[in-house]
Amino acid sequence: MIFRSEIAESLTLKFAEAAGKRRSEGKEIISLGLGEPDFDVPKELINATVNVLQNSKSGYSSPLGLLPLRELLAGQFQELDSIPCRTNNVIITPGAKQSMQLVLMALLEPGDEVVVINPSFVSFIPQIYIAEPQSTVKVVDLDKSDFSLSKKDVLNAISEKTKVIIINAPSNPTGTIFSDEEINWIYNLAVENDFFIISDEVYKRLSFNDNDILSIGSLEKEVSRVFTVNGYSKSHAITGWRFGFMSFPETFTKRLLKLQQHINTNTCTFIQQAIVEAFEMDMSFLKDYNKELKRRASIVSSYLNESKLTLVNPDSGFFAFINISNTGLDSNTFCSELIKQTGVATTPGVAFGTNWDDHIRLSYAVKPDVLERGMKKLVEFSNSIK
Amino acid sequence: MIFRSEIAESLTLKFAEAAGKRRSEGKEIISLGLGEPDFDVPKELINATVNVLQNSKSGYSSPLGLLPLRELLAGQFQELDSIPCRTNNVIITPGAKQSMQLVLMALLEPGDEVVVINPSFVSFIPQIYIAEPQSTVKVVDLDKSDFSLSKKDVLNAISEKTKVIIINAPSNPTGTIFSDEEINWIYNLAVENDFFIISDEVYKRLSFNDNDILSIGSLEKEVSRVFTVNGYSKSHAITGWRFGFMSFPETFTKRLLKLQQHINTNTCTFIQQAIVEAFEMDMSFLKDYNKELKRRASIVSSYLNESKLTLVNPDSGFFAFINISNTGLDSNTFCSELIKQTGVATTPGVAFGTNWDDHIRLSYAVKPDVLERGMKKLVEFSNSIK
Repeated sequence: MIFRSEIAESLTLKFAEAAGKRRSEGKEIISLGLGEPDFDVPKELINATVNVLQNSKSGYSSPLGLLPLRELLAGQFQELDSIPCRTNNVIITPGAKQSMQLVLMALLEPGDEVVVINPSFVSFIPQIYIAEPQSTVKVVDLDKSDFSLSKKDVLNAISEKTKVIIINAPSNPTGTIFSDEEINWIYNLAVENDFFIISDEVYKRLSFNDNDILSIGSLEKEVSRVFTVNGYSKSHAITGWRFGFMSFPETFTKRLLKLQQHINTNTCTFIQQAIVEAFEMDMSFLKDYNKELKRRASIVSSYLNESKLTLVNPDSGFFAFINISNTGLDSNTFCSELIKQTGVATTPGVAFGTNWDDHIRLSYAVKPDVLERGMKKLVEFSNSIK
Repeated sequence: MIFRSEIAESLTLKFAEAAGKRRSEGKEIISLGLGEPDFDVPKELINATVNVLQNSKSGYSSPLGLLPLRELLAGQFQELDSIPCRTNNVIITPGAKQSMQLVLMALLEPGDEVVVINPSFVSFIPQIYIAEPQSTVKVVDLDKSDFSLSKKDVLNAISEKTKVIIINAPSNPTGTIFSDEEINWIYNLAVENDFFIISDEVYKRLSFNDNDILSIGSLEKEVSRVFTVNGYSKSHAITGWRFGFMSFPETFTKRLLKLQQHINTNTCTFIQQAIVEAFEMDMSFLKDYNKELKRRASIVSSYLNESKLTLVNPDSGFFAFINISNTGLDSNTFCSELIKQTGVATTPGVAFGTNWDDHIRLSYAVKPDVLERGMKKLVEFSNSIK
């Protein structure tokens, strides 16, 4: 493939590595960088995995995924997201990123255009150019005052060559949620102009108002235009396990099957078996966790009130996307100086789009006392900038 | 990406699915199709995995892999394969297939040519066209009488555009091993003509004469031209776990790192941790298993002596690549009729190259009584063809 410069090193992981290095040198690090839930993997899932390991054969699985698990996940898409997903619409991949990569490979051809809404997840644009180096990304930036969607900008970005729009709902890094009106508008635009929609919904279960989020895939009668990507990294605290899945239009079965066969063979079979076994486990702990995340978001917000940094309050997930423009520093300088002077690790906003170099991303998926110490240092640091 | 027709459904998996379907319908299947070891996952590895699951955090790992595991695998490449591999030369991927896919993505650009030696692993050619649809595969077929390499044909296949040659050593499907002389000749050819070498060595630990196999990477002073792909699917019977790794020239670190970050994030962390913990386990059982495989290969051979089918005896792995040309049937017809009439599942040779439609692949990684019943039916079936 043509290795375009946009396929850059992931800044989130790069800063995480820098923090790890500092820590290994014995220096204190308050890590507000990477996004990993701070609750333990549910015991039921651990026990199921142990049970499968000790008692089952675990050879290759069907490339699209174990049939019973595809059935269960289709049911989950229906129940939790009102997406008309059936078993044949489900593929299970090693991580949600892999679902995204495979669908982009299946969709994109030279000359195609992809609309990406920035700030966006760091891997979207690299993944597009990995899938098709001769495609073009059309970036639409959210409004800086409230992260709302500028319809005019979206209309300017689409053309006859638009193959697909990618939305991240809820959004990493902003933690905000598109309004129902925005979701309906995007859906109708896609229908009118006949392009596809990929909706990355990995943060949906970590919403502070879970019941109210409208999945764009629920607007379809059958899955035909919308690819809905999800995974258990965030909701089950198994980031390292790599477990993702996607609801996709059946017309893409052959392409996705072939790609999966030749790239992955299958997703780790015993993890799939364990998730089947633990599927009915009690997930009500998420309610408390989301309450706690909401509380922490307000801690972040109240600290920032004493600084020149500003924040659009998040409604989901564990990230605050903070505006640092009043400091006059670019985001790389801000984050580098912050970690050097205080040991607080965050992620520069420029990782999420060139136009977001006046923001930083901060994760509050950390113990509250760590968060408070980090916020104190962050505020002191930013106030010290003349 | 341009979805070329060569990115076909994997015939090995397709026939395996057909067999599974027949079985689920209550019909007997003697499955000699897929290649999965028939020994259990070593207890030490299961126990280590359980221990890690119950006692460790298991978040993201460094994209290239856990540092202690990269160190151990570098040591293993040195010790078992005499490859001058250092920690910085190792990447850990979800399956050996993923290593192959990532290196092809990192290497190939439009116009590049790749030399593939057929019969070859079913995914090589699709993976090449996934990585770079505008590359060209130059196929070199082995000699049908003894699966030896025709140097003349290799010389005809290379050109100024040759970027890399892929070898599968030992070979799936033939089970044969390149001679030291052939390996040296390929290596020198690559040096003289300045192209890369990818050596897929996943069957090396299942060799009947393990000590004698020369890894092409051992001919280098430092890793600079040869990518050596390996994994534990076959040696540790963990096909479903997806654990692969590769020794690669350090100049490719950035590209491989970026691809891994954006496609995979990392290989399942707790599996990596478990392999670290179980690394020193006793692998001497492989000696007995290889003896047993050798015995089964001779069972296959002795049955075939009573038929019009012929075989070049394998020296490794668990596949026999059988010449069916005396039956006059093409391999798809042969395999379809065989499974329909007898319930014996095998894989058509055409899956391994268009020129190998007069062969079938048979796996003897099954219990000996199953193998004997399957062979009896196979011989009866082939003798019944007029």
